Parts: sequence; structure tokens; C-alpha cells
Amino acid sequence: VITKSIFSYIYYLNNLIKWKKIKNDLKNIKLLFLDVDGVLTDGGLYINEDGQILKKFDVKDGLGLKLLKESGIKVVFISGGVGGATEKRAKQLGIEYCLVGVQNKYREVKNLQRKLNISKTNTAYLGDDINDMVVKPLVKLLFTTADGSKLLKRIASASLNNNGGNKVVRELAERILISKKLWKQYSLKGWIERND
Amino acid sequence: VITKSIFSYIYYLNNLIKWKKIKNDLKNIKLLFLDVDGVLTDGGLYINEDGQILKKFDVKDGLGLKLLKESGIKVVFISGGVGGATEKRAKQLGIEYCLVGVQNKYREVKNLQRKLNISKTNTAYLGDDINDMVVKPLVKLLFTTADGSKLLKRIASASLNNNGGNKVVRELAERILISKKLWKQYSLKGWIERND
Amino acid sequence: VITKSIFSYIYYLNNLIKWKKIKNDLKNIKLLFLDVDGVLTDGGLYINEDGQILKKFDVKDGLGLKLLKESGIKVVFISGGVGGATEKRAKQLGIEYCLVGVQNKYREVKNLQRKLNISKTNTAYLGDDINDMVVKPLVKLLFTTADGSKLLKRIASASLNNNGGNKVVRELAERILISKKLWKQYSLKGWIERND
Amino acid sequence: VITKSIFSYIYYLNNLIKWKKIKNDLKNIKLLFLDVDGVLTDGGLYINEDGQILKKFDVKDGLGLKLLKESGIKVVFISGGVGGATEKRAKQLGIEYCLVGVQNKYREVKNLQRKLNISKTNTAYLGDDINDMVVKPLVKLLFTTADGSKLLKRIASASLNNNGGNKVVRELAERILISKKLWKQYSLKGWIERND
Repeated sequence: VITKSIFSYIYYLNNLIKWKKIKNDLKNIKLLFLDVDGVLTDGGLYINEDGQILKKFDVKDGLGLKLLKESGIKVVFISGGVGGATEKRAKQLGIEYCLVGVQNKYREVKNLQRKLNISKTNTAYLGDDINDMVVKPLVKLLFTTADGSKLLKRIASASLNNNGGNKVVRELAERILISKKLWKQYSLKGWIERND
Repeated sequence: VITKSIFSYIYYLNNLIKWKKIKNDLKNIKLLFLDVDGVLTDGGLYINEDGQILKKFDVKDGLGLKLLKESGIKVVFISGGVGGATEKRAKQLGIEYCLVGVQNKYREVKNLQRKLNISKTNTAYLGDDINDMVVKPLVKLLFTTADGSKLLKRIASASLNNNGGNKVVRELAERILISKKLWKQYSLKGWIERND
Repeated sequence: VITKSIFSYIYYLNNLIKWKKIKNDLKNIKLLFLDVDGVLTDGGLYINEDGQILKKFDVKDGLGLKLLKESGIKVVFISGGVGGATEKRAKQLGIEYCLVGVQNKYREVKNLQRKLNISKTNTAYLGDDINDMVVKPLVKLLFTTADGSKLLKRIASASLNNNGGNKVVRELAERILISKKLWKQYSLKGWIERND
Repeated sequence: VITKSIFSYIYYLNNLIKWKKIKNDLKNIKLLFLDVDGVLTDGGLYINEDGQILKKFDVKDGLGLKLLKESGIKVVFISGGVGGATEKRAKQLGIEYCLVGVQNKYREVKNLQRKLNISKTNTAYLGDDINDMVVKPLVKLLFTTADGSKLLKRIASASLNNNGGNKVVRELAERILISKKLWKQYSLKGWIERND
């Protein structure tokens, strides 16, 4: 038991150092790709008798994404799963780019980078499984959830502290806004939704 | 690890002191605003392929709200999210005031205080995120869930011990009823639903 | 922190002693009332935009109830909530008596005891909140979930180790079958569903 | 408390030894039966007012099953519960054999083994409750989830570390692929879905 908690402490420190190292890269992010199942959700697929799929998103992630949008960062949902709930959530949050049923994430990330004319230096990606590993050469920062696949963790720039579906996107949004010194503005009066 | 548990203990004691300090204010509450997503729910938005949203409420929160109502306290649901499930839940519980799609919570809280002729001294608010911070000047007591945003916690009167969606509303209801010495009456025979 | 874990240990031992004491009473149970929300479920009410309510039951609880039924014990669902999902679950499990929308549980328990001609000595009840306290004089054994209301716990015969919705009904079913020496028969070959 | 953690440590070591012992058997698996409720799900049955049942599957389990399929292992869903969501999930994942409403799992496992001409030596089964015990004589490896029934655990070849619905199927899939030395191929570039 003690060995276990020492190991997890070393892992924790190691991850802390990783976050320190990428501080400057984080500041430069202009384009953020988010995997959906296992990142914006806990990976749960609620399936009914007709085969309809329900997914559980989080309201705090949503607020984080609105703040990112306000700061000018482009956010993209990219999912290997079939669409439906995902596009609906993207629409609710005003996410312009929502790619579903993606088999080769490398190709889609590259295409969108070219289309938006945003380079690798300004691109980050948050995933949770081995089908996200393929984007590594295209992005400056590859992140994973705390409960992401070990193989992905090994090549990731850093791991978030939260699990997929458990406000991990909010955590990343706050980290990006802090790096850009855009978070403090909310500390006094909070945030009021604007309609402009 | 030890440092961490010492910090969390200090936080716990500090919060305990806060609750002691507000004991008298709690007794005077006549109007209670409750944020919905992240307070009455855990923030989860279950979205189906048609974009319909399902929310998970809790039956023990519901019983707490019925008791508050019996004691004469006015309860208001106030949500930045779109309506639907929220109004249905309000109706089930006999909550008269249910405000959804609220962008500026300051304005809505103020309006309702004026309409009901209830002053700041008698108003409390339970929220979980930075869009709840704006109501601070309007309420005597501003509460947050255990998993509320740090920025909100910093300005809150006190934090509840439970997370949003995990009986945090019931916890607050019992605290209010205890402060008003209305809780003990249930200790012998419990509670039977009345239809009058 | 240490104080806390000592207290919880005392609570644990105290509960253990309670279970020892009621061993003989458990053996005599012929009629078992189960509250629904917070017992057969975790208290969650999944509400959609039309106000339809979805409830999450557990398959292991279900198997426990089938075993109780096979052993000749009558099981009753008794709920203060509105019906719908509850009756459907009762039907799936072959539960004959399913009472929903019950305001006064005392009256309903008494009525059914009279109808089935089963006395207090042979009746048990598993609940989780203060609206279950009223049945205390009618039942030999009043149980509560691990996360049940404190007021109910204080008057309960004993507490189960599991939370509502988390296989607490299965736990009670196994305890009853063990007390009746009907559990061991499954230890070698398990259980095959019978259709007779 | 200390006694408890020592016991759980012994259990952990014991299980580790069990996994070592079956290393060779794992390599030979060609046919894998998966119970559904409590294995592919956490046992939760989300029931609506019409009696429709929703089940929560996991996307990481799904990816694990796709990898197993690619490696040539036949996967079968076998469920005592009524069908609906289960068949839909099977179809989504390209699982050819999906048996629902099964009362006697012994018979069905045997039938399919004969039909596919796969012997006991090459068959594994992952279950979670006492109605899975009956297949023991037919399979080389009988697995259970971390939260499986104690009676099943006692006769199981080994226990997985995860609970039902919490990526336990993914865990087993990785263990099988590692035993067949088919996991390392993903460590560099991950996995891209193929459509051939």
C-alpha cells in the first residue's frame, strides 16, 4: 500500500514538472481539439431499445468552453463515434467545428489546421485513448485525461487531474486562460453571459 | 500526502467557523435562491440524438424543499441553462418561481426581491460557479457546493459539505430548519406528507 | 481525521452488534416492504423536457428479489413518489404488490398486513428517509440504507452497509436468505432461473 | 481498519498469483463470452414510464472489443436480461453473436461451442453473479468483475481489477492481447480504425 502511494506521488510530481515545462506553449494555443467520448463525457453510452444513444455532458465544461471562445480560441469537437448528441451539444455551446464518425483523426486535424491556417505551434489536443495517439506529430500539446489509456499517457505532453466527463475540459480551459492571464478578470465579479 | 490532508483539515475547520458565524443570519432566511445545474444536479446534461436534455434530480433534495416550503420559506430555482426538465421538477415540487435561461442573475434576483418585498437580510443563494458570483451584493448569505468553483468559494459565506446533485440542497434545508428550531419536530415520528 | 475514523469504527461495531441481536427476527420475516427512491434507486430522478421520469434500478437487486420470492417471502414496493418506472420494474420482477404515490405509509403497511394476514413479527421494512419513520410501530425490523437519513438511522433496527441504488436490496436479500439457511444451496452451482 | 487493509492486500496478492498461473491459458483463448448487465454495464437499468430500458455501455470497452475482433477472437454477448439495448450495442460493435433472455447459460454456451467448433480449452467467460456459475465446467477460464458476487469469485479463475461498467471488459481485452503479444504494436502509433 505504501509503495503504491509513493509511486502515485512520484507520478504526481512528474506531471507537475511537465505542466511547468509547457507553460509557454500553453500561452500560444489558438486551436484546441477535444475528443468527445471519454473527455467531454465519461465514456458512457446510454443506449435505449431503439439503439438511440444518450451522452452525459457537463455544464461546468460548457462554461469553460464559452470562456475559451470569448478569449478567441477556436475549439473543435472530434469524435470517432457516431454523431447525434455530440453535434447537438456543439450547437448549444456555439462550437463551430464538430467532426463525428472520424476514423483517421490525423487527416481531419491536418485538414482543419490548413483550412484555418493555424500551425502546429498553436494547436493542442485533449484525448483519452489509443485512437488519439496518431495526432501527436501535428500538435504542440497533446493532453490526456487522468483516466486516459496508459499508452496515450506515455506520449502525452501532460495529464489533466480530472477524469473524462468529470470537468476535465473545464480544468484545461482554466489552465489555458491562466497561462494567457485571462482568468484573474473573473475573480472579483465572476462572469455574466453576453449576447454580442 | 500528509501536507494535503493537513490543508484539507484547515479548510474544514475554517468552514466550520464560517457556519458558526452565520448561525443567526441563517435563522432569518425567508427567500432562498437555488441554482439548478451543479446544485440541484451534478451538472450533468444527458443529451439525446434529438438534442433533448435530461437532468438528474434527487428525491432527498425534494423532501428537503417540501419541508422548507411548509416552514414558510420561499424557494426559487434560477438557472442560466435552457428550460425543460427544470420547470417540470419545479412543478412537481410546487416551487412557484422557476427562472430559466437567465443571463444576468443579478437582475433577476433583484427583481424578485422587489416583487416579493423581501430584503437582502432575508435572502440566501446557493450556487456553484462563477456566473453566480454577481449576486453577492444582493444576498445576506451566498453558499456554494463542496465542488463549486474556487473563485465562488473565496467569496461565499460558507461551503456545504456535499457536492452538487449529491443531496447538497437537502443539507442546506436541514441547516436552515435546525437554525429555526424546526427540525427536532421530525425526530420522533418523522414526516407524513400533507395535502393541505 | 483520526477522531473521525475512530467514530466510524465505533459506529461500524455498534451496527454489527445490532445485526447479531436481530438474527432470530430476521429468520421469521415473511413480508418485506421496500421503499423505492433512495433504496431500489440512489434517489436519482432523471427528468426529461416533457416531465417524464426515468429511474435507475439494479440488476443484482433484481436477482436478490427473485431469490426471496422463490423462498416464499412476499415483497412489496412502497413509494411516496409518483408511479411509472416503479410499477414497470415491479412487473418485470414479478412483484405482486406495488404501492405508489403513498402519502401515509403507516396506513398502507397496516392495510396490507391485514389483507395478507401477516403480523408485525413477520414484517420487515427497508427505507431511507424521514417519511419511512412512521411505520416503526408496525414492523419487527426497520432497516435503513448506509446513506439513509440520520433521524431514521437512530430508530432503525440496523443499517445496511450499502447505499441506496448500490445493491443494498441484494445485501438485505442475502442476509435474510443466510438467516433462513437458504443461501448455501447456491454456493456450488449458483442459480438457474426457473420458469415454474 | 488496519486488519481490513491487510486482508485486502492478501486478496490482491492472491489474485495476482492467479493471473500468473493462467498466463498460458489466456494466450489460447479464441472464444470469449461476456455477460452484459454488471459486466458491460454497472448493472444499472434505467427504466422510463413506459417500461423501456436504457443501459449504459462504455466507449473504452467498445474499443477493446474491436481490437479483440481484429485479433480473430470471437466475442459473444450472453445475457439473462431481456434484449433491446444489448442487441443494439452488439450491432454497433459488429458482435456477431448476441444471446439475450437466456435462462440457462450452460446450454447456450455449450451450443455455441459446438456450432463454432471451439473447445473448452479455448473458451473464456466473464460474469458477475451467481447465474454465471453454471458455465464453470464448460470454460477454461471463468472471470469475474471486481464487484462480482462472492460465490462466483470463489470459483473464478481470477478477478479483474475493475468493476462492471467501469472498463472491466477493456481490462480483460488488454490482458488477452498482451498474452498474445498483440498489444505492443499499438504503443508507438496507437490505433486507427480500419474499414476492411
